[in-house]
Amino acid sequence: MSFNTFGRMFRVTTWGESHGPALGATVDGCPPGVAIDESMIQHWLDRRKPGQNRYTTQRREADEVRILSGVFEGQTTGTPVQLMIENTDQRSKDYGDIAEKFRPGHADITYWQKYGIRDYRGGGRSSARETAARVAAGGLAREAIRVLAPGVTITGYMVAMGEHDIDRARFDWDQIEQNPFWCPDAQAAADWATYLDGLRKSGSSVGAVIEVVARGVPTGLGAPVYGKLDTDLAAAMMSINAVKGVEIGDGMAAARLTGEANADEITMGDDGQPRYSSNHAGGILGGISTGQDVVVRFAVKPTSSILTPRRTITKAGEDTEIVTKGRHDPCVGIRAVPVGEAMMACVILDHLLMHRGQVGENRGRIGQAF
Amino acid sequence: MSFNTFGRMFRVTTWGESHGPALGATVDGCPPGVAIDESMIQHWLDRRKPGQNRYTTQRREADEVRILSGVFEGQTTGTPVQLMIENTDQRSKDYGDIAEKFRPGHADITYWQKYGIRDYRGGGRSSARETAARVAAGGLAREAIRVLAPGVTITGYMVAMGEHDIDRARFDWDQIEQNPFWCPDAQAAADWATYLDGLRKSGSSVGAVIEVVARGVPTGLGAPVYGKLDTDLAAAMMSINAVKGVEIGDGMAAARLTGEANADEITMGDDGQPRYSSNHAGGILGGISTGQDVVVRFAVKPTSSILTPRRTITKAGEDTEIVTKGRHDPCVGIRAVPVGEAMMACVILDHLLMHRGQVGENRGRIGQAF
Amino acid sequence: MSFNTFGRMFRVTTWGESHGPALGATVDGCPPGVAIDESMIQHWLDRRKPGQNRYTTQRREADEVRILSGVFEGQTTGTPVQLMIENTDQRSKDYGDIAEKFRPGHADITYWQKYGIRDYRGGGRSSARETAARVAAGGLAREAIRVLAPGVTITGYMVAMGEHDIDRARFDWDQIEQNPFWCPDAQAAADWATYLDGLRKSGSSVGAVIEVVARGVPTGLGAPVYGKLDTDLAAAMMSINAVKGVEIGDGMAAARLTGEANADEITMGDDGQPRYSSNHAGGILGGISTGQDVVVRFAVKPTSSILTPRRTITKAGEDTEIVTKGRHDPCVGIRAVPVGEAMMACVILDHLLMHRGQVGENRGRIGQAF
Amino acid sequence: MSFNTFGRMFRVTTWGESHGPALGATVDGCPPGVAIDESMIQHWLDRRKPGQNRYTTQRREADEVRILSGVFEGQTTGTPVQLMIENTDQRSKDYGDIAEKFRPGHADITYWQKYGIRDYRGGGRSSARETAARVAAGGLAREAIRVLAPGVTITGYMVAMGEHDIDRARFDWDQIEQNPFWCPDAQAAADWATYLDGLRKSGSSVGAVIEVVARGVPTGLGAPVYGKLDTDLAAAMMSINAVKGVEIGDGMAAARLTGEANADEITMGDDGQPRYSSNHAGGILGGISTGQDVVVRFAVKPTSSILTPRRTITKAGEDTEIVTKGRHDPCVGIRAVPVGEAMMACVILDHLLMHRGQVGENRGRIGQAF
Repeated sequence: MSFNTFGRMFRVTTWGESHGPALGATVDGCPPGVAIDESMIQHWLDRRKPGQNRYTTQRREADEVRILSGVFEGQTTGTPVQLMIENTDQRSKDYGDIAEKFRPGHADITYWQKYGIRDYRGGGRSSARETAARVAAGGLAREAIRVLAPGVTITGYMVAMGEHDIDRARFDWDQIEQNPFWCPDAQAAADWATYLDGLRKSGSSVGAVIEVVARGVPTGLGAPVYGKLDTDLAAAMMSINAVKGVEIGDGMAAARLTGEANADEITMGDDGQPRYSSNHAGGILGGISTGQDVVVRFAVKPTSSILTPRRTITKAGEDTEIVTKGRHDPCVGIRAVPVGEAMMACVILDHLLMHRGQVGENRGRIGQAF
Repeated sequence: MSFNTFGRMFRVTTWGESHGPALGATVDGCPPGVAIDESMIQHWLDRRKPGQNRYTTQRREADEVRILSGVFEGQTTGTPVQLMIENTDQRSKDYGDIAEKFRPGHADITYWQKYGIRDYRGGGRSSARETAARVAAGGLAREAIRVLAPGVTITGYMVAMGEHDIDRARFDWDQIEQNPFWCPDAQAAADWATYLDGLRKSGSSVGAVIEVVARGVPTGLGAPVYGKLDTDLAAAMMSINAVKGVEIGDGMAAARLTGEANADEITMGDDGQPRYSSNHAGGILGGISTGQDVVVRFAVKPTSSILTPRRTITKAGEDTEIVTKGRHDPCVGIRAVPVGEAMMACVILDHLLMHRGQVGENRGRIGQAF
Repeated sequence: MSFNTFGRMFRVTTWGESHGPALGATVDGCPPGVAIDESMIQHWLDRRKPGQNRYTTQRREADEVRILSGVFEGQTTGTPVQLMIENTDQRSKDYGDIAEKFRPGHADITYWQKYGIRDYRGGGRSSARETAARVAAGGLAREAIRVLAPGVTITGYMVAMGEHDIDRARFDWDQIEQNPFWCPDAQAAADWATYLDGLRKSGSSVGAVIEVVARGVPTGLGAPVYGKLDTDLAAAMMSINAVKGVEIGDGMAAARLTGEANADEITMGDDGQPRYSSNHAGGILGGISTGQDVVVRFAVKPTSSILTPRRTITKAGEDTEIVTKGRHDPCVGIRAVPVGEAMMACVILDHLLMHRGQVGENRGRIGQAF
Repeated sequence: MSFNTFGRMFRVTTWGESHGPALGATVDGCPPGVAIDESMIQHWLDRRKPGQNRYTTQRREADEVRILSGVFEGQTTGTPVQLMIENTDQRSKDYGDIAEKFRPGHADITYWQKYGIRDYRGGGRSSARETAARVAAGGLAREAIRVLAPGVTITGYMVAMGEHDIDRARFDWDQIEQNPFWCPDAQAAADWATYLDGLRKSGSSVGAVIEVVARGVPTGLGAPVYGKLDTDLAAAMMSINAVKGVEIGDGMAAARLTGEANADEITMGDDGQPRYSSNHAGGILGGISTGQDVVVRFAVKPTSSILTPRRTITKAGEDTEIVTKGRHDPCVGIRAVPVGEAMMACVILDHLLMHRGQVGENRGRIGQAF
């Protein structure tokens, strides 16, 4: 029932505001005996950290994580892990404009209407800064997955920036870390750089589509009918700031297919495991993983913090205009890539634990007497 | 942590298999004093019922709901409401083929691998028959909403069948109930009838896109950051059988917009309430409702039960082919429309209760001293 | 958050009223592959069934359970198990008195004040009839425990009726099934029979203390600090109708001990497992099972349905008196014994699953290199 | 499902170990607009703080709380409140003995067996230091209750130390704050001082019984049948370290009463509200509050840290003896008093929110037309 908790057995409760003293994640249910230290979590935080290139906010945050509990002599103890990140660059500035006006397309107005109070500094709780806590928790989840299901790898990348899609024919896993956009298509990355420079200079912004793939996921994760793996992935991704759509496998395009085209045909592999002719399903059938790649995509809308004036109102109910100056991301989707990976890691681990809890290990063995 | 429960305060646990004696919904947390009887729930079930026209499965189910608990003298008592639907048309037939082979694109194989046992008759727990229980629970939710937020209306309709989209310029609310497809575009409905007749005769199937709109939703529903209204809607819709994508407002297309285009500008209305120039956000900002229409879309893949042979394997691990004869829907998306409405109703009611629990009523009043 | 759900992974939602058409338990999270049929659950229901001797209510209920879902070919499938019991002896009578007056010491008044509506027939939802659903769920839990931890046995018995305690020196496991009170002391049972006959004839009632012991519980069940095994047992027992106190091990008497007296000293057994000199702790240290007997006691207050007039008020706010005629139990504690056993079974199974989920199997091995 | 979370809507997740860098409570679901600052929480922490008199551990902890999130300009914002307390007196010492041996009656052995790793320093997660986080959360809960139900007061006190009970005839609310034992009987307090001095000097320890009373609790809090107010109170109190028994109202003694003696008779008060002749029920009927005092008692066992040698074993599986030197409480029950109050506050607030969520306000009005 917690508003700020995600997960069923591996439960992540994030806390903190953009400009408060600190933020973090309280992680409950982590298995004991997982080797972890701060540097292993820092690795993932550094990928999300702002100010790393000219395409993301110039806010300077060290984003240094501290483990305050749940780890002893380099291993998790099975008790809650507190991951805290202090805010260090709460630039002293005049927030008067944001405090009194609501940015169109932003949580400002709804937070105000609901709660009658909001920490308007940097967006407060609605700031994408909250996602740093997710990335920290995701770093811990990755290490736990490494113990429980060593073959799993989780990789996110950008497949569209605004109107500009990647060319799947040029897809190259090795390109993803080679450009500031986590783009698997070197040509697209080059084009996007030019495009985004233009947007940045004009104080505009643009949306993006992120794809996250988990490879090596064991068969059998997920459960009917509200505990489906895809249900939890949809919730996980939709909970990220600015996300407006989530797709599994073929996603919205599945609506356009016939049954013949959509069928991922099955044959027996030489190793006695099923093989699939295709992966329209995105690695999930009936809410349960097939052993194929688990493929999720989500759309991030453009940030509403732009230099072009937009009409809005004040708390006092007066019509006005607003221009959002300051340190913002022309394409917030870039920094959503590590966040999407983190959410995938949390969901996969959560389902590994639930599966082990209810079922132990998979009980149906194809091709074996039983 | 329940796998088969949806919701936080208004909690719906569905149970039952396609060919078991009965299925139903155990509904906990319903407010007391809601006027309800079986006919009010039956009304919604009848909209989803199979066999109503030539485009849906010819299985004959009365789908008669019985209220077994939680209602006294025509009103809810605040205790659990048990809504039971007996299965009456479990046609005796030979399930040998389905029992031994896995349908491509179906939950057959994953259920088997995970659990080592599955009720293969009609798909068992993975059958879309489970959605009857959702529709029953949604019928109850609608009546509770009527008490708590009388202005809310919830309407679903189909906006695409396969490659064929509606023309938004021809959108007509009154058309939705006038054709077998819940299609708001009379011209599209006519075209789809011809198209689907062809598919049906060839034993093929096709996907669809459903849109569900809730109008009159009060401002302030939803909460950060994992209790967002859109997070819960995404989970609700993705949990429906065969759904592969979920969108809020502009959805995946939001990725293609610039910040200027995406901004729903705000002005003050004559009634002292904010007005929005557009609704790219789908009625939700920062996870909290704005008071605009809440707009959700989801894609339903084509059913995998088709007459064209597809390659598959047996439980014993042998390569084979499968053809699915029997009573199936050429476009399962048709019957997903009332299901999407039901899930919307459950989510809205759940958030009405949570909002009242935590906040009471909205505390921020625009244009008023405070 | 469910009001009517108990458990974390093995989740039991009970529903139904005393005089509605049926009641039952919706059980989610049961492991797959557990052999079960209706007769195995009926066995436990028959122990609780009313009207079996002159000391319990003469209401005639067959209490026949039907499994409506989640079981296929004699085994659980891992999907929700619906256990339904139809009410057959809803004797048609005039409820006018109970409908308008509140019985002192009964839920009548609080249900009315809270909900503004209550099913007054037989106590409605507050009736001890609800516990039939718990016993059914407990029967299923026992079978699942048999698979996961075969050495566990769960036994309840009465240790005090009113002022009359058993003599622990005469404790005999074999006596428990030999008398109508589940009393392990034959002498006490004989005395109680006389005592209770007197109470019954005078239309009075009396309380009781029940003890439930789980033997053979594996070490390691339970978790800090709100998921302790004793925390969940306390909640489980206190949730039973009329229970006013719960004790683990020495219980309230632990307050009277010194640290020296309370220490359960530890030595190594020949089998390489720890041995304890005593079991003041009731088999639980730090919320986690030690492998000793898990010992819980709870006090059941006397029923408020008695023949001696008591002062009360009407719904209309007038002072009056009430006498409760009808079919009631002079010592409701008797029928609470199977209920206490059922709750113990549900809690043990739940913790077996949670332990397996988070930890897999115990990781600390005394006396072994690691 | 969280192991370290308590509550349904007002959810408190505590984290941290005795000798880690910090501990705290992550509080989700707090209503917005509650006036709060650190000094208001510090007030309650200071009551629990160790080292305040010769009867509690001489560990020196400032126990200074910091609010890291969820509060803006002196009010809660409705987002998670992080309450952190840094550990400052982690005295550097040799933990070798405790690291290798298990204290009888302590969580040492079960944590080890379950997790295979434990932070043995000061008891780690099983230390009563965790209760500081509960007291902090309880301080916040008290302020929220003040807004929602201003008449509520919550007071805890000790009613027995070892064999020594208070004399209820000498009960004086004003005495509670006048002695180091929170004892409402001045004579008993004087006797206990002498008694405990003796125990302390001999390095022994003793148990205690604590009673917590909530006055002014509105009618209608709690819900059937696993969401009962007393069920949640039982879980809350049993989750406190070293608690072995919990009683509501007459508690275990209710078993000794007849129905006539147990009845709290009802009459109409001049103010149109029901009056009760007694309060055997402890303010709760059918799991729902009556408006009378809510009365809970719990027994705290003596600490296992004593100077008399006790037999135990080592991790290596060898028989040995243990003597626990260091800074310990001869009667840990003393410091459990503020903890019991805090848990009562959390439960009451949680149920205020749940009641408002499901029901709004009480719907049944005695003596009024409806």
